[in-house]
Amino acid sequence: MEKSFIIILGYNSSLPFYNHHPTSQILSMKNNLFLIDCGEGTQTQLLKTKIKMNKINNIFISHLHGDHYFGLISILSTYQLLRRNSLLTIYAPKGLKEIIEIHIKWSNSNINYPLRFVVLSSIKQKKIYENKNVKIYTIPLKHKIYTNGFLFKEKKNFKRLKIDKIKKIKEIKIKDYRSIQKGYNYIKKNGTIIPNKYLTYNRIKSLSYAFCSDTKYNPEVVKYLKNVDLLYHETTYLHKYKDLANKRGHSTSINAAKIAKKSNTKKLIIGHFSNRFTNKSMFKKEAKKIFKNTIIPKTLVKYYI
Amino acid sequence: MEKSFIIILGYNSSLPFYNHHPTSQILSMKNNLFLIDCGEGTQTQLLKTKIKMNKINNIFISHLHGDHYFGLISILSTYQLLRRNSLLTIYAPKGLKEIIEIHIKWSNSNINYPLRFVVLSSIKQKKIYENKNVKIYTIPLKHKIYTNGFLFKEKKNFKRLKIDKIKKIKEIKIKDYRSIQKGYNYIKKNGTIIPNKYLTYNRIKSLSYAFCSDTKYNPEVVKYLKNVDLLYHETTYLHKYKDLANKRGHSTSINAAKIAKKSNTKKLIIGHFSNRFTNKSMFKKEAKKIFKNTIIPKTLVKYYI
Repeated sequence: MEKSFIIILGYNSSLPFYNHHPTSQILSMKNNLFLIDCGEGTQTQLLKTKIKMNKINNIFISHLHGDHYFGLISILSTYQLLRRNSLLTIYAPKGLKEIIEIHIKWSNSNINYPLRFVVLSSIKQKKIYENKNVKIYTIPLKHKIYTNGFLFKEKKNFKRLKIDKIKKIKEIKIKDYRSIQKGYNYIKKNGTIIPNKYLTYNRIKSLSYAFCSDTKYNPEVVKYLKNVDLLYHETTYLHKYKDLANKRGHSTSINAAKIAKKSNTKKLIIGHFSNRFTNKSMFKKEAKKIFKNTIIPKTLVKYYI
Repeated sequence: MEKSFIIILGYNSSLPFYNHHPTSQILSMKNNLFLIDCGEGTQTQLLKTKIKMNKINNIFISHLHGDHYFGLISILSTYQLLRRNSLLTIYAPKGLKEIIEIHIKWSNSNINYPLRFVVLSSIKQKKIYENKNVKIYTIPLKHKIYTNGFLFKEKKNFKRLKIDKIKKIKEIKIKDYRSIQKGYNYIKKNGTIIPNKYLTYNRIKSLSYAFCSDTKYNPEVVKYLKNVDLLYHETTYLHKYKDLANKRGHSTSINAAKIAKKSNTKKLIIGHFSNRFTNKSMFKKEAKKIFKNTIIPKTLVKYYI
């Protein structure tokens, strides 16, 4: 199973900019593909990766500003043209369903694959997805309109068995393995306890990724981000524009770095830069003063969590 | 004044394709800019030209299939962010206004510049625009949903004056020039008629451009296209798929070439190729059998009419 990673398809803010793309990311976590936000041109960006669009079954939309969702409708149309038949679930604020339906109505077409909308409306954190490997939660953000970030967590990994040690204890059967992988000791028929650590390697740490865009500086969010392995946080403005940032529901480089530091994250990726700043490296320079492991991403590159 | 030209921003059909762009074109006619169709990514393509987006005051949408209009909403948003204040007029079938308004409603934003929708609904040809230099007409097409092509015609050019000849006739004043430029003879005070051709060069021919996408083969359209200087006509399919093309409301390469020939156009540009055909040059090869001056366009290149 490939280690979990993200690919940033775009991290531009709302004004178009030559050769930049609005917000969209692909997260691969325990071999599940999640599409996070979907600015215009997302499907064209996807075509440049090796990601198979048809393997995406869950799309997460943070909020209904165009630079975060205008690319969605063409992806839904493409799925129809490609005769998708598997369920697609879209997690988004109220309104997106109505928008999609209006487009479909006027094009006199249909969506024949199962399409499910999960309407996000709570201002508290909610678990919105769970399968055997991954749990996903909203991160309530403070923006000009109702907005969520998303927290993606790998579930506890099974421990890897020390097969040589296990083979020595003849009475351990294959049906017993799962319990040992979960971390339980093995109790022999004669009552002897074989400690789990004798039978297994150390558990591989479960990873987590948090996506926070768009949001004003809000230290309350830190409680949702504690010890997250990788954090994407928007930095629309350099810090000298902190008042403007706050007024417009956005963060500065210093704001993002403070959130990263307080959250005890390992790595911070910044983006969503306003195009008024031509020298984007200034964002990194500012953020690094507070949080050293800050990067400006390259699009279409895999970042392992 | 620059000679009229088109720039093709994209001519892909509905399925996305690496490094191709869905339908959109810019026409510059007598220094007026007209945007014709607006597939996803149109504004990004525009950024690659020297066209100033803010100089576009009229947008023409052929029909409400996504590959012809999904890029419009982000252009309208960008105009808002750039604080446009001049009138923008959109000529489109019924429905587009509703679609745009739903997007604006849910983003909790506004459009503060004057935005006018001209709803196209006639199945007969209509003149939809006229200024001092240009007239624009719909071209009723036959597609799966209500669709128009567009015919752009330069108005009659003023004749260029032979200044040396005019100077010899002292009584001709500057105020008389416009009448001579229009082609009238000059009548001297003594009653002598000075023939117009003595005072002016031959009139420069007024040019015309026709855009026909999407449409099934329909020879009736020829009456709208007579002697058009440049014709863009869709060719979604190679001719062996003519039945499928017809069923789906599209044309083949041979269909387009026949329309070009019957219309007595000078040049045919083809596009909107289905991505099932990897070798696009086959389209040109087929069309050229019927109509020699056929080209597959390069995007972002100026084609003078």
